[in-house]
Amino acid sequence: MVWDPEFEVAFNPKTVAVVGASRETLYYGDFVGNLQHAGFPGRIYPINPKAAGGEIHGLKTYPDLVSVPEPIDLVVISVPSHAVPSVLEDCIAANAKNIHIFTAGFKEMGDEKGIALEKKLLEIAKRGGLRILGPNCMGLFVPASKLSIWERITPEAGPVAFLSQSGGHALQFVPEATRYGVRFSKVISYGNASVLDSIDFLEYLANDAETGLIGMYIEGVRNGRKLTTLVRDINATKPVIIWKGGSSDCGARAAASHTGALGSENEVWDAFFKQTGAVIIDGLEELIDVTMTFLKLRPLPSNRVALIGAGGGNSVAGADVCARAGLDLPHFTEKTLEELGSFISPEGTIIKNPVDIGVVLRDINILLRSLEPVAADPMIDSIIFALPLDVMLMGDGQTQQPPMNAPGEAVEKQSGVMNTLIRFNHENIYGKPLIIVLQPGMGSFVPGQRGQVQQVLLKEGIPVYFSLARASRAVGKFIQYHEFHSKY
Amino acid sequence: MVWDPEFEVAFNPKTVAVVGASRETLYYGDFVGNLQHAGFPGRIYPINPKAAGGEIHGLKTYPDLVSVPEPIDLVVISVPSHAVPSVLEDCIAANAKNIHIFTAGFKEMGDEKGIALEKKLLEIAKRGGLRILGPNCMGLFVPASKLSIWERITPEAGPVAFLSQSGGHALQFVPEATRYGVRFSKVISYGNASVLDSIDFLEYLANDAETGLIGMYIEGVRNGRKLTTLVRDINATKPVIIWKGGSSDCGARAAASHTGALGSENEVWDAFFKQTGAVIIDGLEELIDVTMTFLKLRPLPSNRVALIGAGGGNSVAGADVCARAGLDLPHFTEKTLEELGSFISPEGTIIKNPVDIGVVLRDINILLRSLEPVAADPMIDSIIFALPLDVMLMGDGQTQQPPMNAPGEAVEKQSGVMNTLIRFNHENIYGKPLIIVLQPGMGSFVPGQRGQVQQVLLKEGIPVYFSLARASRAVGKFIQYHEFHSKY
Repeated sequence: MVWDPEFEVAFNPKTVAVVGASRETLYYGDFVGNLQHAGFPGRIYPINPKAAGGEIHGLKTYPDLVSVPEPIDLVVISVPSHAVPSVLEDCIAANAKNIHIFTAGFKEMGDEKGIALEKKLLEIAKRGGLRILGPNCMGLFVPASKLSIWERITPEAGPVAFLSQSGGHALQFVPEATRYGVRFSKVISYGNASVLDSIDFLEYLANDAETGLIGMYIEGVRNGRKLTTLVRDINATKPVIIWKGGSSDCGARAAASHTGALGSENEVWDAFFKQTGAVIIDGLEELIDVTMTFLKLRPLPSNRVALIGAGGGNSVAGADVCARAGLDLPHFTEKTLEELGSFISPEGTIIKNPVDIGVVLRDINILLRSLEPVAADPMIDSIIFALPLDVMLMGDGQTQQPPMNAPGEAVEKQSGVMNTLIRFNHENIYGKPLIIVLQPGMGSFVPGQRGQVQQVLLKEGIPVYFSLARASRAVGKFIQYHEFHSKY
Repeated sequence: MVWDPEFEVAFNPKTVAVVGASRETLYYGDFVGNLQHAGFPGRIYPINPKAAGGEIHGLKTYPDLVSVPEPIDLVVISVPSHAVPSVLEDCIAANAKNIHIFTAGFKEMGDEKGIALEKKLLEIAKRGGLRILGPNCMGLFVPASKLSIWERITPEAGPVAFLSQSGGHALQFVPEATRYGVRFSKVISYGNASVLDSIDFLEYLANDAETGLIGMYIEGVRNGRKLTTLVRDINATKPVIIWKGGSSDCGARAAASHTGALGSENEVWDAFFKQTGAVIIDGLEELIDVTMTFLKLRPLPSNRVALIGAGGGNSVAGADVCARAGLDLPHFTEKTLEELGSFISPEGTIIKNPVDIGVVLRDINILLRSLEPVAADPMIDSIIFALPLDVMLMGDGQTQQPPMNAPGEAVEKQSGVMNTLIRFNHENIYGKPLIIVLQPGMGSFVPGQRGQVQQVLLKEGIPVYFSLARASRAVGKFIQYHEFHSKY
């Protein structure tokens, strides 16, 4: 269908009815309780003929949609699949047209029964003008509206939309990405895409002022040509980051069983990415890294980076992964080399790009002093700074053991190293961003400490990665995105 | 040189002299203090003409090697590079022939002075029959001998040798891999490889009864033909896992500055891996995953795996990464499908390989019950079981919220899910190993908890990974290793 703007109310509803609401608090199934827990400020109407007249979580329960005393902005259906058609008829009768069908058991079953049921669903939807999200999906999560039928979800809103054909990916991506500083405008798990498809939601998100970046997990699409045009246009102003599932034969088979998606050939998708310039990623981890990169970095004028780290092996292996990710590590100018050489002893170090400050790290200030001349170098547009976790926690000018925190203890007092990095990035005299890689420590491990350092740096607007490979891959894709658009 | 068995005493020395020992406890530089901290049971002789007669860490300090009252099994040199030749002459005079030169500033400098200094070093070594490790390296870490000049290192011994041309990689790999259950026989950081090269140490490790597996980080080698023959032979009985640094132009440039290594063309290395069957890996993370896999899994008869997880998107994306890693997800037999179908509702699930138990997870027992028929399937040789962290922590038959631990609280009481997995793997009726993927949780994050669950499972002998991509890549390489050897 063409995007129907009347569905928009579903993202900020005043009233939500949950059909198939139950007194039992089932894991991931207690949608009424989850809505309440999320602080949903509108009215919630539990619908269950068997429980009618009673209460669910303190709310009056209705026998059917028609009995609800006011218009319903969003209906969530979680009844068994065979009962879905009659609930849809009720929706028509109640003039409730925005519907999320959580229930599975339709065309993705691959059997006659499931296919017939989906056909029926489509017939009713068409007849009643129903705007259906799903079936077989986790529906909507809209932080700004405190709308969530999901468990334990952070309520902070942000600029990232996630459009996912997999409910599980959405459920894992949201909390995990939140730890990386990613915040969401709209998360839409759309499952079988029987009525509303990715294309419809993209049309909406294209014009959604709260959305600045769109992530997608997609298994199949009905109208590939339309998707190509749409993504190409959106991607010029709002980056579109796409994880395509089902690229292998076995994955495509699984996709057919998952959402009934009939994946196209890989060549078709290759052409799609070439034409649209959308950012292709693979896997949850890369989706998070790349999304975080787009949020934290401003467009870079080039792919010319300086890599500063400790240990020659890191320099060598870091140069390898940077090269593979399309990043250029140019030679420094003579001036930079001279300045670095004025305070870095040449023995056990590498005073060129990539810079190796030496594994000895007798004076952490040497590492930090190297930032200034490198940032001033006209050959360089960004700086990747890689440090082991325990060195990151060292104090200013410290020559002793780094002050490792006790297990569970928060990294409250930021270390001298962290302070210097934050200050450098904040002053940003040369307009060259700092990209930090938090490597495994060289000493004993304190559980949770890596995440604490990550949080401190992210809050200061610095992108943080857990390996040089992840950093260079994400930054490389970020730069390629902007290169693509500068060409057009 | 050809491996000189007389160097072997250096791995289990009775006496160690530290030339250039200092009263200051420099970070990574206080070798005397570090040896003491590691519990080294032999005698330590600090050598420093300026401090002679005094004490360093309570030990009598000698002016030179000749003054030491007994034979010295290992000399560690950390004086400035210009002073190294005269210390080497002292070594000859004191008849101390096993030497680790920590000092950098030789051929890796790329300048006349450095090259001349290395030439001098070689001349003295040849004349005196000195067995030199380095220069420009972190030397030896031998847990069984409590021999370590490194900081804060676990003393437990195990079957893994690590041979690294980068001291930094060794310093990061050892503590990080330890968290993944990896324990070491000998770790050798050999730097410039001026006298003793990787080939020499490989000859030693080939016959070392305490070493069952060899990891390597290598930038260059003098005798490629010899390395090929040697690795091919060793690899047939002791797996050799190799990280080759300097595969990019910039990486090769950095390698020249790091260890003076002149890397060969990539084609040469491609041929090397084809001929030897050595396991090629890239990066610290993969080195750890693959090493851990070799330690935890017995050889598998085939690449046919079953993938069981929660969420259709995980099944689809999991199938994709498995395919890419060379793993086969075959169709289950009819019997297996029938058995799975007898207790898994078909709606919202996928009852085929990969199995999706459904994102709803109303009853965790369904997930666990699926293990039995899948393990019994003759088409399957191993099972990859992927669960979000919070589901992994659920109790037996739990239908409520999983019992999330408070921050910092240990996962003491193993959850019902973990207990079931451990029991299943322990009983192992069908001889098919369990491979566990600990995915990001779908709820709020408790710092340190993921690592705690990992520790519990690893201790029970179950390989644990943090993503499907990492698991399939490591298991795929493990299977390829055994396939290579079954062909020869």
